[in-house]
Amino acid sequence: MTDSPLCNRQVRVVKRAAGIPTPDVFELVSAPIPACADGSVIVRVVVAAVDPAMRGWLSRERNYLTVEDGAVMRAEAIGEIIESRNPEWHVGEVVYGVFGWQQYAAARPDDLYWRIDPGFAPAEVWLGTLGLNGLTAWIGLLQVGRPRPGETVLVSTAAGAVGSVVAGLARARGLRCIGITQGAAKLLRCRETLGCAHAIDYTGADLPGAIAAACPGGIDVFFDNTAGAIADAVFPVLNRGARVIQCGSVAVPTWLPVPSGPRRERDMIVKRLSWQGFVVLDHRDAFPEALGDLKRLFAAGMLDAETEILDGLEAAPGALHYLYSGHNRGRLCVRP
Amino acid sequence: MTDSPLCNRQVRVVKRAAGIPTPDVFELVSAPIPACADGSVIVRVVVAAVDPAMRGWLSRERNYLTVEDGAVMRAEAIGEIIESRNPEWHVGEVVYGVFGWQQYAAARPDDLYWRIDPGFAPAEVWLGTLGLNGLTAWIGLLQVGRPRPGETVLVSTAAGAVGSVVAGLARARGLRCIGITQGAAKLLRCRETLGCAHAIDYTGADLPGAIAAACPGGIDVFFDNTAGAIADAVFPVLNRGARVIQCGSVAVPTWLPVPSGPRRERDMIVKRLSWQGFVVLDHRDAFPEALGDLKRLFAAGMLDAETEILDGLEAAPGALHYLYSGHNRGRLCVRP
Repeated sequence: MTDSPLCNRQVRVVKRAAGIPTPDVFELVSAPIPACADGSVIVRVVVAAVDPAMRGWLSRERNYLTVEDGAVMRAEAIGEIIESRNPEWHVGEVVYGVFGWQQYAAARPDDLYWRIDPGFAPAEVWLGTLGLNGLTAWIGLLQVGRPRPGETVLVSTAAGAVGSVVAGLARARGLRCIGITQGAAKLLRCRETLGCAHAIDYTGADLPGAIAAACPGGIDVFFDNTAGAIADAVFPVLNRGARVIQCGSVAVPTWLPVPSGPRRERDMIVKRLSWQGFVVLDHRDAFPEALGDLKRLFAAGMLDAETEILDGLEAAPGALHYLYSGHNRGRLCVRP
Repeated sequence: MTDSPLCNRQVRVVKRAAGIPTPDVFELVSAPIPACADGSVIVRVVVAAVDPAMRGWLSRERNYLTVEDGAVMRAEAIGEIIESRNPEWHVGEVVYGVFGWQQYAAARPDDLYWRIDPGFAPAEVWLGTLGLNGLTAWIGLLQVGRPRPGETVLVSTAAGAVGSVVAGLARARGLRCIGITQGAAKLLRCRETLGCAHAIDYTGADLPGAIAAACPGGIDVFFDNTAGAIADAVFPVLNRGARVIQCGSVAVPTWLPVPSGPRRERDMIVKRLSWQGFVVLDHRDAFPEALGDLKRLFAAGMLDAETEILDGLEAAPGALHYLYSGHNRGRLCVRP
């Protein structure tokens, strides 16, 4: 860090990504720290997220949210308010919001999610297990998936930021959880730390056979973060009345053109499946109850919040490629 | 009819159907009229259904229901009780139930759905618009699809037994309905009789373009009886938060092997779609309310119950092939 404190280093988007965003989609620039407009605050970013969803924000395809070329890369982050021209937000408060991949952000009230208590958990945990990742897992699994006692849950990317909380919640509710992940370390984490009844490597020789063998009673709730070939191996094992939460699609490298896969219509009818597309920001009403429960479980040691922090904004342009490689451990973020 | 009244003509299943059932899947036989066991009744069949769902009952593939080789072909039917050894069911009552493609059926209480009033509507209407077809349309559209005022509904096989009731219910609720069908006569029926805002021929040159042009505000509820290429043309036009009721898959000729189609996962997320597999028999609790409303609308002239009756059991073995050809008019059934 050779910049003066008055200089704000930022990662900006320079072009659309084709598939997984590579470092050349971004540029690292320096800009003055913005002035604080009336009603806004200036936040010093402590830690910023690196999320699978960012791929969609950077793609050419229609998405629920897009970051335009020339803009600072959008990212949820934890930061400290260092200047305020808003009477509801005060200097010194640590806040969760959309601050981007940069050192300092001018944040309007809409960009600020809520205050966090750094004494309760480290900043990076508030960005993951106690942030939108945890809320995604909680609301998706419990309110959309509606698991009943004794049911089996299967979660893809089980060692990831959302998946690990799904597994933890399933264990806390006494559900049987099967995790799909990759590599010996993550398999071990799923079994030993997250309490999955089985952890399955999706690069194994016979994924459909492995899933069927791990789920002799079938699958009642499928929390799908991957789509693609992994989902194709899960659908035949779904039980009648199963619920599918479509939360992500990281196993499909591109949607231009839309790839083909096995038709689901017959399974939908024969098994009376419920398949729901899920974006957590649609469910703000449920945040207080969900966050309260997540905090309670975290304090009780029932949620493992493993985090990998990349140091310095220089690491951000390559971070999505790294995330999609699957070599990261737990929730990935960057400390700018 | 040269048989004596003591002889029961029946259509039996002799083998599994590959795709659309052809006449050689069945055989026409004569058997004695069964004796009436304790607790059962003997029904003289008045009119029996010919339903798209029968293909699934006859296929090799796993289905929600199967008719085994050697059995009388299962069919919902209307019949008159001619003998009873059950104090709850009386000779002379006209009943709706599962009586099969035959002239006389021995029916246990489980085979009997409910009594019908032949003075209120003809028997064939009780088999369609006021039977499971109508209940499928009512519960699927209103309880699963949950349309809100001002929304647009698209229904495939709009001139069929279920689709025509979906269109009628949509009109009765003030919804905008787009019907997919085939041929000039059915297009006219959709527009003029069923009140569809647009009727689209699925054999036209540019089905996706025609659907998009007919739905400038998108589609909120997709009542899908066809799956396949028709569904592929509908999905791009679905609105955010749209509901898809998967009721049938008649446009897909075989599921062995499972055919490929465009992956839906990204649409599921980006549009927050709700996709529900639907079999009406799972929703018996809703039958009284649904049937009450259907009767009220039928009496008010708001539901068109066009029916095509094939005369004689000889017509039954070829009836499914005829139904899937799309040349039938309205609800198809056979008078044995």
